[in-house]
Amino acid sequence: MPETLTKILDKVNSPKDLKVLNINELNDLAQEMRELIIKKVNTTGGHFGPNLGIVEATIALHYVFNSPKDKIVFDVSHQCYPHKILTGRKEGFTDKDSYLKYTGYTAPEESAHDLFKVGHTSTSISLATGLAKGRDLLGEKENIIALIGDGSLTGGEALEGLNNAAVLNSNIIIVLNDNDMSIAENQGGICNMLTELRECCGEVKNNFFEALGFEYHYVDNGNNISSLIETFSRVKDTDHPVLVHIHTIKGKGFKPAEENKEPFHWILPETLDHLNEPAALQGESYESLTKDYLLKKVSEGEPIAAINAATPGVFGWNKEFRDKMGSHYIDVGIAEQQAVAMASGIAKRGGKPILGIMSSFVQRTYDQLSQDLALNNTPATLLIFWGGISSADATHLCTFDIPLISNIPNIVYLAPTCKEEYLKMLDWSVNQNSCSVAIRVPMNISYSGTVDSTDYSILNKYKTVNSGKDIAIIAVGSFFEQGKKLADYIKSKLNINPTLINPCFISGLDKELLNGLKDNHRVVITLEDGELSGGFGEKIASYYGSSEMKVLNYGSQKEFTDRVPLDELYKRYRLLPEMICEDIEKVI
Amino acid sequence: MPETLTKILDKVNSPKDLKVLNINELNDLAQEMRELIIKKVNTTGGHFGPNLGIVEATIALHYVFNSPKDKIVFDVSHQCYPHKILTGRKEGFTDKDSYLKYTGYTAPEESAHDLFKVGHTSTSISLATGLAKGRDLLGEKENIIALIGDGSLTGGEALEGLNNAAVLNSNIIIVLNDNDMSIAENQGGICNMLTELRECCGEVKNNFFEALGFEYHYVDNGNNISSLIETFSRVKDTDHPVLVHIHTIKGKGFKPAEENKEPFHWILPETLDHLNEPAALQGESYESLTKDYLLKKVSEGEPIAAINAATPGVFGWNKEFRDKMGSHYIDVGIAEQQAVAMASGIAKRGGKPILGIMSSFVQRTYDQLSQDLALNNTPATLLIFWGGISSADATHLCTFDIPLISNIPNIVYLAPTCKEEYLKMLDWSVNQNSCSVAIRVPMNISYSGTVDSTDYSILNKYKTVNSGKDIAIIAVGSFFEQGKKLADYIKSKLNINPTLINPCFISGLDKELLNGLKDNHRVVITLEDGELSGGFGEKIASYYGSSEMKVLNYGSQKEFTDRVPLDELYKRYRLLPEMICEDIEKVI
Repeated sequence: MPETLTKILDKVNSPKDLKVLNINELNDLAQEMRELIIKKVNTTGGHFGPNLGIVEATIALHYVFNSPKDKIVFDVSHQCYPHKILTGRKEGFTDKDSYLKYTGYTAPEESAHDLFKVGHTSTSISLATGLAKGRDLLGEKENIIALIGDGSLTGGEALEGLNNAAVLNSNIIIVLNDNDMSIAENQGGICNMLTELRECCGEVKNNFFEALGFEYHYVDNGNNISSLIETFSRVKDTDHPVLVHIHTIKGKGFKPAEENKEPFHWILPETLDHLNEPAALQGESYESLTKDYLLKKVSEGEPIAAINAATPGVFGWNKEFRDKMGSHYIDVGIAEQQAVAMASGIAKRGGKPILGIMSSFVQRTYDQLSQDLALNNTPATLLIFWGGISSADATHLCTFDIPLISNIPNIVYLAPTCKEEYLKMLDWSVNQNSCSVAIRVPMNISYSGTVDSTDYSILNKYKTVNSGKDIAIIAVGSFFEQGKKLADYIKSKLNINPTLINPCFISGLDKELLNGLKDNHRVVITLEDGELSGGFGEKIASYYGSSEMKVLNYGSQKEFTDRVPLDELYKRYRLLPEMICEDIEKVI
Repeated sequence: MPETLTKILDKVNSPKDLKVLNINELNDLAQEMRELIIKKVNTTGGHFGPNLGIVEATIALHYVFNSPKDKIVFDVSHQCYPHKILTGRKEGFTDKDSYLKYTGYTAPEESAHDLFKVGHTSTSISLATGLAKGRDLLGEKENIIALIGDGSLTGGEALEGLNNAAVLNSNIIIVLNDNDMSIAENQGGICNMLTELRECCGEVKNNFFEALGFEYHYVDNGNNISSLIETFSRVKDTDHPVLVHIHTIKGKGFKPAEENKEPFHWILPETLDHLNEPAALQGESYESLTKDYLLKKVSEGEPIAAINAATPGVFGWNKEFRDKMGSHYIDVGIAEQQAVAMASGIAKRGGKPILGIMSSFVQRTYDQLSQDLALNNTPATLLIFWGGISSADATHLCTFDIPLISNIPNIVYLAPTCKEEYLKMLDWSVNQNSCSVAIRVPMNISYSGTVDSTDYSILNKYKTVNSGKDIAIIAVGSFFEQGKKLADYIKSKLNINPTLINPCFISGLDKELLNGLKDNHRVVITLEDGELSGGFGEKIASYYGSSEMKVLNYGSQKEFTDRVPLDELYKRYRLLPEMICEDIEKVI
């Protein structure tokens, strides 16, 4: 890759510096920014295609509008790198040592040009209606701009926002960044409607946005700064709701990304250095096991429906898998509520829905889990991926799914500890017809080496893996390995042989087993890979509340952590065997 | 009211009996059903206007389609009484002694003609897409019909469902029951779009539904059985997605309800017997206090925004209040996600959003509470109404808000116990700028009689109302009165003077106070008016897990109860003072 030149960018330290540049300089600036983004993201990893596609629109927005007085709300903010470059944070892209200085999402603590901390999709229009209403109540004037992608537009919150923005009766400008892609291919009637608009350059018989009451503008070349500036200038200071539909190219300026958009949505470090090498063979994983299982069931004629909400990559549901699954594969778009309700309907009609969802996004569909699914006891299977304590960005934490799912009546929430259990639980869930089941799929595969012959229809039956005395460790799912380590440490340090329990069920108590522990145990330790507050351990503590048993709960605290290294979190939450052992010594 | 004649209905025991009737008989049947509904609902209370409006459409649906082979999914099922009459449950309307035999919602346990237990809105299209997909995977054929109202259409789940239904590529028929009303007036761009369709008899420049890919049909007189039969017959057995837009009259056939739709959406028993009497004067309530407070702040020039999602009646936000509030009143339609995100936006821009929401509906907006609000620490005020254990229908339980809200980081969840605290907390919340606050508004007003001078910015500071020993009672919010009763009972029964604590804060622990209790207390009792699982008490139990303190938690179990009388629930959950005292005696 050539040495990056930043001769225009050198002069741009804030959006106002853009306004003195001519169109050639702006175009050169776009090129400089694009090269910086490519280089930076290839070093650190991050969102690639979305940022390359929005460079010109970001320049044009900041050229025409006056941020931070005018307010630009980014949706999901996968596409805020150009914005960060132009709003005083360019060293995060020019200076290798500062590459990790800024988050990959908008962050008000970094800059007055960022309005909200955002990382889940479909929020910008609703947030912008609030800003606009607040402005109006205060009797002030400014432009409120909501930027949203075509993929994000299919989320319920975005559509609720659109319905409300349309009748605001004052200034609000929605910029629809249509690159004809969600993370994977777009889905649904809205996608088809946008395709028609693009194909007819905005001139169609039935204009969806005009039907809702928006003044509609179309920019066919959304990577052309002049066209964008012209249209944005025309709608600036509008006194009514406007929607500007800009057609951009995801991955613009990096050919492989333009041609093959899905794998370049988000890339790992050094991806671009190995483009022509064949993909490394992946070892066995919960993702590969799931895919193999689903394909096998389909080949056996089962009415399987593998459902997801626009994130097939999370589960390794790549194009090859999707093609093989055919009509058994469903991507509902960014629409988690639809995904859960549809799963319930499929199960009700005798199909076998298996819904893959990332822990962080389960919370986008609580009411559907409760009302459409649990209340109706429909036998759908939910696979919750990535659940656990991590060094993720504050917007993508995966620590909240245990409190969320396990406090809804009726749903059976299972926590496998190894491949053998996972496959047995999955198969049990798919073949039963009496309840809704969620399975917390661990990140890293492990093996028990023995066939799992458990009958999971006997609910809330915990497994005693080692029968000891004095101390019992109940270690949930992906923290079972932690439990084993702790048991070993206790044995060597305290010369006590602790009981080790794999509860298998997160959503219920094995009262018989818990009662039995009272006979020869004084302390119960719970370990869960997620938020303590409202979680599994507190239920154990409550159960033993009237007894002599001491209970110590370990998991994450109720907090939004932001890119905190995992080892630091483990220390903060006292999850290390030696720390837990210290705590035990205090109570024993 | 005249004696109800049911000579046609006598012959109708299931939908197939309709098919031999001629149009005059069908019309007479509609009249008979309408009279039964008026009489029954005026006796028991229930949904009035929605059911009167849908009589003809229900007859036509069952005349044309073959339920239960063909599947009709009701949205929210506020409008399922005519359906129940026609599907083997007419004695619930003809026989006074059977008036309470059936729930007011669809219920699969009652009839094969009911697909789902439903009571929250905006679900029918998504559920129907699942039924259709299940049918297609099994290679079978039938009609899948989703009935949805214009009010429900603005909910995110409904719009996500519409986006997916449009591309199903097989049979799905959406019947949009447009009576130009949500519970209150309709809101938003979708409402305006539907108005235009009605005014132009379905012929408009920009057809929203055609833009999405639906075949669109319009029935201008949706209370005309012939027109409905004709259109339903035309779309029956379609092989692609169809939307039939029917224009009905909410409250049809009962003039006061036709003319004044909002108060007749749901009525109390005997409402129709007292139509000409002036409304009884309402005493002071948390609703009236809230309204007075908001109007006062508006009159002082504060940028207040009183927001709700289509349920102003829950908070007593009647027309008079709405008119007085003017632009300070916002109804976002059935769109709880929008309501929360918009509140966050308003707060960010310096406005003062106060969002009223019923406990049962908080769960429709978990991700927005977490991401749009809590993560951004925007100073919005949420008023959670009706939270508590009740004899409600399974779909409208209000027991889940404590686990839901109090396990999200950053949100301060307050539980006032009396008028004085409520007003102080509300005023504190509205005037502060550092965090998102939710207040659990009790159902019944009580008074402390003393000025509340608490500084609620000192978070998680519990109040010791009585300092005793041995036993401490921590009684949350609306259960504080229960705590007082328990304290009295313990005093007389056990001759112990128990400590009584009003925690004020549901979302955090007062560790100093809890630690202090260890000095001279052996048992802590927690009382909360909601689900124990994931709730407040478990956190207290966990906190004391390493100590000698015994902890007994009281609240509701994790279950969907369905119209269980309150006294039965109190016994089931051992909430009565004598039962708790029995439990205490076992551990003390």
